[in-house]
Amino acid sequence: MKVIVKQETMIKALNIVLKAVSPTSTMEITRGILIKTVGDMQLSLSATDIQLAITTTADAIVNEYGGTIVNARLFTDLIRKLPSGDILIATDEKNVIAIKTDKSEYEIQGKEESEFPRMESEEEGKKIKLEKGLLKDVIEGVCFSASSDESRGIITGVLFEMKDGTLSTVALDGYRVAVKRETRNEFQGEDFKIVIPAKNLREAGKILADIGGDDDEEIVFEIGENWVRLYPARTTVRINLLQGEFIKYRDVMPKDNRISIRVEKNELLSAVERAAMIKSDGKNSFVRLSITDDFVRVSSRGLEGKGKETVVCEKTGEDLEIGFDAKFLTDALKAAEDDVIEMKFNTSVSPSLVRPSEGDRYEYLILPVRLSTISA
Amino acid sequence: MKVIVKQETMIKALNIVLKAVSPTSTMEITRGILIKTVGDMQLSLSATDIQLAITTTADAIVNEYGGTIVNARLFTDLIRKLPSGDILIATDEKNVIAIKTDKSEYEIQGKEESEFPRMESEEEGKKIKLEKGLLKDVIEGVCFSASSDESRGIITGVLFEMKDGTLSTVALDGYRVAVKRETRNEFQGEDFKIVIPAKNLREAGKILADIGGDDDEEIVFEIGENWVRLYPARTTVRINLLQGEFIKYRDVMPKDNRISIRVEKNELLSAVERAAMIKSDGKNSFVRLSITDDFVRVSSRGLEGKGKETVVCEKTGEDLEIGFDAKFLTDALKAAEDDVIEMKFNTSVSPSLVRPSEGDRYEYLILPVRLSTISA
Repeated sequence: MKVIVKQETMIKALNIVLKAVSPTSTMEITRGILIKTVGDMQLSLSATDIQLAITTTADAIVNEYGGTIVNARLFTDLIRKLPSGDILIATDEKNVIAIKTDKSEYEIQGKEESEFPRMESEEEGKKIKLEKGLLKDVIEGVCFSASSDESRGIITGVLFEMKDGTLSTVALDGYRVAVKRETRNEFQGEDFKIVIPAKNLREAGKILADIGGDDDEEIVFEIGENWVRLYPARTTVRINLLQGEFIKYRDVMPKDNRISIRVEKNELLSAVERAAMIKSDGKNSFVRLSITDDFVRVSSRGLEGKGKETVVCEKTGEDLEIGFDAKFLTDALKAAEDDVIEMKFNTSVSPSLVRPSEGDRYEYLILPVRLSTISA
Repeated sequence: MKVIVKQETMIKALNIVLKAVSPTSTMEITRGILIKTVGDMQLSLSATDIQLAITTTADAIVNEYGGTIVNARLFTDLIRKLPSGDILIATDEKNVIAIKTDKSEYEIQGKEESEFPRMESEEEGKKIKLEKGLLKDVIEGVCFSASSDESRGIITGVLFEMKDGTLSTVALDGYRVAVKRETRNEFQGEDFKIVIPAKNLREAGKILADIGGDDDEEIVFEIGENWVRLYPARTTVRINLLQGEFIKYRDVMPKDNRISIRVEKNELLSAVERAAMIKSDGKNSFVRLSITDDFVRVSSRGLEGKGKETVVCEKTGEDLEIGFDAKFLTDALKAAEDDVIEMKFNTSVSPSLVRPSEGDRYEYLILPVRLSTISA
C-alpha cells in the first residue's frame, strides 16, 4: 500500500471508526484499525469490537494497492500531532508502516490485513429510510433507560418495533420505561421487531452527531437476520442484534390515571435538580412531590438539611403525595421534548408517567419510591 | 446573620475561596467556608487548608450582622443551581442556614463561626508591588519544575529571591531547574529570600487568572516572618512559607557551554512531542537529538516503532548527540516565552539549557539521559 492523504481528512475518518475501538480490550485485533485502498481515489478504515463494526472512507491518492492493520491508539495519536497537509502512508512486505511528511518520518509495526475479522455480510437485509434527526432523537430519547448492567441481557437493548405504520422504540431497566413513537404513512407494511444493544446504539448516535449535515438527511437503516446496518454519509455502522423476546412493556404501562398535572418542564426539572442536592442517604437523592390544585411542591431531606421548591401547575384529579428517585425523574424530564409537559399519576405507589400534553410521541414511566423512605 | 446577595456575585466569590477548600480533607473545618457580614454592604467568604488561606468579599445587603461556617460542597452546589437574582441567606441561633429565593427554600446545618481557624495576622509584613502579569508569568514559568513529591520538603517550593534589583524565581526537582529573572530599578534595596510551596502558588495563579482585569494591574505582595500575602482585587491569599535553606542552584547551572543552537521553539516542540508518541519502554519517552550544522534531528525508538523529525537550526560549536526525557524537554520548551530560543550544551552527559536568544530572563536546565538508554 502507498497512499497520500490529507491529515485533516484522515483525522475525520479516524474519529468515526475509533467509536468501535476498545483500547482496553484483551482481544488485540479490536485495538486495531484496518486501513486499505479502495480503487485509485479512496482509503477505507474499519474497526470492530465484534458487536459493533464501523467502516468509513477517506479521499486519498492511491499509488499502490494494499492494506494493513494499525494500532489504533498510536496511529491516531501520531496523525493528530502531524501538521495539516499531505501525509504519505506506505507499507512494506513485512507490514512495517511508514508515515511521512516533509519533516517527519515514522515507522510502526502493522499486522497482516487478513487477521482482521471479516465484517461484510453478503446477505442483504430489509431497508428503510429514516431521517438522521429522527434517529438521533430516538437514541437520545430512550437509550438512557436501558439497563447498563451487561449481565441483564435483553434489557441492555432498545426495542425497535415497526407495526401498523408506527415505529416504537422502547428501553427499560426495571425501574422505568422509555417509549418513543413515530407514525407515518410510509411506515405501513414495513413491520419488524428488533432489539439493538443500547451501548452500541449510543456510539452510532455519536457518529450521526459528528458527521454534521442536515437533520432531514435520510439514513438507510438495513435490518438483517441478526444485525442492523446504518449508512450515515460515507460510513457503514453494523451492530449485532440482541436475541430473545423483549419484555412485554405494554402490560406495565398504566392505562388508568386519575390525577394529572400540566407543568413547565424546565421549572420542574430545575426544582428537582436543586432539591436533589440534599442527598437523602449520603448517596441517592429522593424527592417528595406534594401536588395540590395550583402547585407541585418538591421537597427533600437528609442529614445535611432540607429543601423545598414550589412550581406552578394545572392539576386534574385529587391531591397527591408521591416520592421518586430524583435521578429517574430528572432523566425523564430531560428527555421530554416539550416546554409544557404532562405528568400522570394514579396512587402514591403506582407507576407514574411523564408525557406530552398532546399526543403520545413519548412516554416515560417511572416507579415511585415509598414515601416512608423520604422523611421530607 | 441575614443578608441578600446576588447569585452571580456569590458564585464569583465562592469560585475564589474554593481554591483553598480540600473536599477530601479529613479535617472537617477545611471543607467549610466561613461566611460573615462586613459592615452593612459586604459579605466576606474565607476558606483555608491551613497552608493556604483565602478571603474575598462580595457585595450584599446586610440586614443582620453575623457569620457561620457552611459546608463548601453543598452550599456551592446549591447556589450554583439557583437562578440568577437575589438570594436571602439567614442563620438562626443554632447555626441553621436558610437559603431562600421566591420559589426555593433550603435549610442546611452550619457551624459556629468561632470554630473557623484564625486567619488574620496583626503583624504587618514587607510590602512590594508586582504586576499581575509578572506574577502569572513567574507562576506558570517555574512551578512545573518543583518536585510534586510532598516528602521532598524544600524542593516542593519555589524560591523568590530579590537581590541587587533582580527578582529571581527558581524551582527544581533533581532532574531540572527552572529560573526566571526580572530586573528593575525599583527592586533595588528590596532584598528578600523566601520559598513558597509550588502547589499553593499554583492556586494563587488560578485566582489571578480568574479575577480577570488588566495584566498591568499592580498586586500587593506582602512578606511576613513565615507567610506571604497577595491582595488581588477584593481578595487576600495567604500562603505559609516553607522553612529551610533552598538548594544552591547557582552551583549547578552550567557556565561553560561549548555548543549552542538557535531554533524556532514551536518547530522543535512539535517535533519532540511527535517523537515522544513512540514510547521507549512502554511508559516513558526518551528522544535523541542529533545536532549537526543546520539541523537538529529528533529521533525515538521503542517496541512500537521508530520516528525521526528534522528541525532547521543555527549551530555554534561541534556536532553533538544527546538524549533527553521528552517530558522534561517539552515542559521547558513550553515555558520558554520566545518564538526563537537558544539551547546550550556542553557534552552528551552535561546539563543542558533552554534560554532566550538574548538576555537571561529565563533559564531551564535539563539533565540529559544516557544515550545507551535510547536505542534510536
